[in-house]
Amino acid sequence: MKQPQNDGRRRVVIEGVSPEIDAGRFPIKRTVGDKVHVEADIFTDGHDSVAAVLAYRPESSKTCIERPMRALVNDRWAVDFLVTQLGRYRYTIHAWVDHWVTWRQDLLKRIQANSDTTLDYLIGAELIDHAAERAEGSDADWLRKQAALLRAENGSMESLREVATGAALSDLMDRHPDRQFETKLDRELVIVVDPVRARFSSWYELFPRSTSPEPGKHGTLNDCEARLPYIADMGFNVVYLPPVHPIGRKFRKGKNNSVTAEPDDVGSPWAIGSEEGGHKSVLPALGTIEDFRCFVKRASDLGLQVAIDIAFQVAPDHPYVKEHEEWFRKRPDGTIQYAENPPKKYQDIYPFDFENPNWFELWQELKSVFTFWIDQGVRIFRVDNPHTKAFPFWEWCITEIKNRWPEALFLSEAFTRPKIMYRLAKLGFSQSYTYFPWRNAKYELTQYLTQLTTTPVREFFRPNQWPNTPDILTEFLQIGSGSAFMVRFLLAATLGANYGIYGPAFELLQSRPVRPGSEEYLDSEKYQVRHWDLERSDNLRDLIALVNRIRNENPALQTDWSLEFHPVNNEQIICYSKHTDNPSNLIVVVVNLDPHHTQAGIVELPLDKWRIDEDHPYQANDLLTGARYVWSGRRNYVELNPASVPAHILLIRRRLRVESDFEYFL
Amino acid sequence: MKQPQNDGRRRVVIEGVSPEIDAGRFPIKRTVGDKVHVEADIFTDGHDSVAAVLAYRPESSKTCIERPMRALVNDRWAVDFLVTQLGRYRYTIHAWVDHWVTWRQDLLKRIQANSDTTLDYLIGAELIDHAAERAEGSDADWLRKQAALLRAENGSMESLREVATGAALSDLMDRHPDRQFETKLDRELVIVVDPVRARFSSWYELFPRSTSPEPGKHGTLNDCEARLPYIADMGFNVVYLPPVHPIGRKFRKGKNNSVTAEPDDVGSPWAIGSEEGGHKSVLPALGTIEDFRCFVKRASDLGLQVAIDIAFQVAPDHPYVKEHEEWFRKRPDGTIQYAENPPKKYQDIYPFDFENPNWFELWQELKSVFTFWIDQGVRIFRVDNPHTKAFPFWEWCITEIKNRWPEALFLSEAFTRPKIMYRLAKLGFSQSYTYFPWRNAKYELTQYLTQLTTTPVREFFRPNQWPNTPDILTEFLQIGSGSAFMVRFLLAATLGANYGIYGPAFELLQSRPVRPGSEEYLDSEKYQVRHWDLERSDNLRDLIALVNRIRNENPALQTDWSLEFHPVNNEQIICYSKHTDNPSNLIVVVVNLDPHHTQAGIVELPLDKWRIDEDHPYQANDLLTGARYVWSGRRNYVELNPASVPAHILLIRRRLRVESDFEYFL
Repeated sequence: MKQPQNDGRRRVVIEGVSPEIDAGRFPIKRTVGDKVHVEADIFTDGHDSVAAVLAYRPESSKTCIERPMRALVNDRWAVDFLVTQLGRYRYTIHAWVDHWVTWRQDLLKRIQANSDTTLDYLIGAELIDHAAERAEGSDADWLRKQAALLRAENGSMESLREVATGAALSDLMDRHPDRQFETKLDRELVIVVDPVRARFSSWYELFPRSTSPEPGKHGTLNDCEARLPYIADMGFNVVYLPPVHPIGRKFRKGKNNSVTAEPDDVGSPWAIGSEEGGHKSVLPALGTIEDFRCFVKRASDLGLQVAIDIAFQVAPDHPYVKEHEEWFRKRPDGTIQYAENPPKKYQDIYPFDFENPNWFELWQELKSVFTFWIDQGVRIFRVDNPHTKAFPFWEWCITEIKNRWPEALFLSEAFTRPKIMYRLAKLGFSQSYTYFPWRNAKYELTQYLTQLTTTPVREFFRPNQWPNTPDILTEFLQIGSGSAFMVRFLLAATLGANYGIYGPAFELLQSRPVRPGSEEYLDSEKYQVRHWDLERSDNLRDLIALVNRIRNENPALQTDWSLEFHPVNNEQIICYSKHTDNPSNLIVVVVNLDPHHTQAGIVELPLDKWRIDEDHPYQANDLLTGARYVWSGRRNYVELNPASVPAHILLIRRRLRVESDFEYFL
Repeated sequence: MKQPQNDGRRRVVIEGVSPEIDAGRFPIKRTVGDKVHVEADIFTDGHDSVAAVLAYRPESSKTCIERPMRALVNDRWAVDFLVTQLGRYRYTIHAWVDHWVTWRQDLLKRIQANSDTTLDYLIGAELIDHAAERAEGSDADWLRKQAALLRAENGSMESLREVATGAALSDLMDRHPDRQFETKLDRELVIVVDPVRARFSSWYELFPRSTSPEPGKHGTLNDCEARLPYIADMGFNVVYLPPVHPIGRKFRKGKNNSVTAEPDDVGSPWAIGSEEGGHKSVLPALGTIEDFRCFVKRASDLGLQVAIDIAFQVAPDHPYVKEHEEWFRKRPDGTIQYAENPPKKYQDIYPFDFENPNWFELWQELKSVFTFWIDQGVRIFRVDNPHTKAFPFWEWCITEIKNRWPEALFLSEAFTRPKIMYRLAKLGFSQSYTYFPWRNAKYELTQYLTQLTTTPVREFFRPNQWPNTPDILTEFLQIGSGSAFMVRFLLAATLGANYGIYGPAFELLQSRPVRPGSEEYLDSEKYQVRHWDLERSDNLRDLIALVNRIRNENPALQTDWSLEFHPVNNEQIICYSKHTDNPSNLIVVVVNLDPHHTQAGIVELPLDKWRIDEDHPYQANDLLTGARYVWSGRRNYVELNPASVPAHILLIRRRLRVESDFEYFL
């Protein structure tokens, strides 16, 4: 009979590892400086003691760092470690039966029962001698000396006990454990460590062509550069541009998406490519590649990272169509298949055929689009409709790019079915748009955000919350007036450590759809140049600037993982908190979801969890208005008028000091 | 740049497969004739249609059987198939983009919008021609003819539509799909198919040495054989014997586990081995191997399968100790380490050392113990304390044995921490003892049984519910009188499709512990011969026989997977149901958990789920008493007196017939 390959003496079981995505098929995600909390079920047969370590390393390093795991309860073990550098890490778990600890614990019981014998100490001496063989130098010498003491025939029971149970011996034995039969988890798990911007970002999207100071004139990248201080002053840290490439002329769409364009219509930036170039060119009306590089440089000087739109589709006059006919699906009449959603036809757009025989050439070319823009200084990519391109491409492409540029970030614009959105995140997208635009009621927001921030989904899917986009003018914004914009902005910016707005349409309260029932903007910038009057008195810029400042100053708002919802006895008022560890920074947000009426209610906070004394008043300082409330106990009254500011962003401070807190009291 | 190994054109994703234990690391379990319901998340990029099949085969067969999966909702797909033979099966999933179905669905939309063109039909003709290449004979000819019809220049739009959307064409195209870029799940999942007895069994445990008709005399296997009709008459189908091997003499335990034995003390059957032999011998006082074979034969004639106890430990005088000193741990003084749980010492027992260098020889010898008894006709093994032997041994040993004897069953006697119990089940044990003996309150029973029967645990862990064992005389039985025995028996036999009792101690209501606070029986058969008066009038044999008959006649009680608890407005009354598919056999059980007082309450049943009309009376026939109740609506009154029978086992029948149900009404 053949002996099993694996040594049957490896008696420890390691299972139920967390975090782990699809049994290790996909990495988990963290940002630089984050803590990784790993747990596993670890146990062995019988009553022997077990020891376990987590072994981790940056992927580039051959050497593992080991951290001892600690037993929690019910055979669950845990350990925390920090990831301090960009790129991929790997971690795994080793565990073994610890005969020394078993012996020592048994000995302590024997001593307690006064039933220890010299034979027991001889067994201990053997274990110590074996450890001495694994140790070196003075450690080994010292251990051998202890073993000899336990074997000394003239030793008293008292002295044997003292030697055997000493803390120094215990420490040294722990440092030289017998791991010959250790069990290793059968796989290494991967962590992708991104820059902090992956976890905490404030995006501002705008169309460069609408930035000319002169109404009716096509804006340029230089005009857009002049807009950057306005954006930076509002406190954003990512400025995102729709495609800046040449726009197709064949089947170009006119204003408000009309099928026939007028000669002076500028077309949709997502109909990419013309005789002027494709995905690696800049539309001449916007400027040159050099202008683009200047734009990136100026943004960087203002603390803004530039994100660009990557839309893998072409207009019929894109150079690819001539140069790489084989990348597109041909119809029996020899024409190329345009995009369709029958009976709708999108004749201005050709999709790539990811099943074409030269698929890998196509993959390489598409990857080179990213690297081209990386060479121009871009590190953040908002990817248009990634769910209409083959999934294996994304995993390959993003992994390849991040191996070289681990600071690169990818935002997935897939407003589609949940499992597809999650799959794209697993494949490597750093952030994802969400269903947030359509979650308006308290129950909806609570359910959805709880799923995103407290379940294993959060290990791979980072939400980026947008109240509007050029494609999404929600009904809530259409019918809710300026208060509705404030409500949705405040929710996005406090529920989402990552959030963004499409401006100036947002801060200028654009709420008219192209027709009733549509989520498309009237006179959408997608099809025409717009001129925006930023000096209007109802511009929300001040509120936005204030909230972004609050976000920048309060680390609690820079993560989604601590999000917790709290009861309010009014369905129109939502209350939630975010906090850092301990909690050293604790923010409670209260929002009136009703843009039309003042709402009031009692919020109920988990003071015990936050270690706030229920019996003493504490401070709730509204960072939006500067108002300072003195609250006491779990339940406190709130009232919010949508006509002024429909929310509180409360910084919770420790209890008010009383006389006995002061020196002169004593 | 190197092309990825996997063809990037495999666009379909398969994930979230269920059932699947630890990402396929362990098999799921079924019994012959069972249905396997498999689900998975299956989707692709874009809007193309997807098709999927489940491919399964008995492990011995090279050829897979394919069953098409059907889409449920939210990208979840499902399929059922039957496992009809003993042994291991394997299953996996293949899925692909179905361009034909995509084309056909798009065409139907175009036709509806009256926007179909001849070009659309030419595309269809291409797809059909490709299918013809994959088909043969008349199928291929017919497909080519259809393609030609779609290309016919003189065809009317009407005839094109008719050809393209015809059901016959659709059927034939489905039979010849284009699977060149199909995705295969990256693993085969395993099913262990056991005999039905693994799912449905009624165990009776007894000590053969207590079966002599003559008080004070050591019973033999022949005496035990004479007891078999008594057991068969009660309706059991497994008779389980504690170890029948020679019993060690060194450090033998006396009556009531006293440390010193009297010369005539018989010792514990679990202290295995003496000069008379070891694990492959029969204690001479019980008889011979031939007697044992006769016993198995006679049991079989009565419809009883014999289960024996396998306890892998030895008495100090077991032949292994001399022959294989290296299998045991030596102490520094040269003696062998006996079992301990400091400060307790079990000097009559030597455990095997699973870390010894000859571990694989030990494994092989232990396996040969099973095969020895298989050669004597045994197929069911109750394994003593498997959690104190190395886990890798069990997986290897059980797999080896079941590969040759797939009908073999293993019951794990591990009353230990939950994750260890589950691990043993994953490793191969067919059934497991549970915490049932200590679950008394309605909340406890509901929580525990719901976890065992409705979560993924049920895929690998089959509970076997015992109200008592030779080691476990629960406090509930000690303080509850005869009613307590009835309550616990009725719960075990109706909550557990697998259950057992240790008799005659159980049916003779033995309730005295060796001392207060202990769960050990006074004068336990583990240490002495007992004589039982089976003719006592309070023997529960009639109730037991009735309940086993009800179990045998009602398939609803032969599975745990349909178990559901129902509300009762009295914490002392528990109500639950089990049913077969449809449900064709539907049993509702109501038990008074209070052994001292009559309890009454209103039970609430999910009539809608069972498709019972709420507006018509229906029958609830008590199979225990023969009483026939007419119930109506969801809520009905029950009242149970523990002094008579503390439970209803109700067979629910369709509604009472009314005048219009009869022929003469019309």
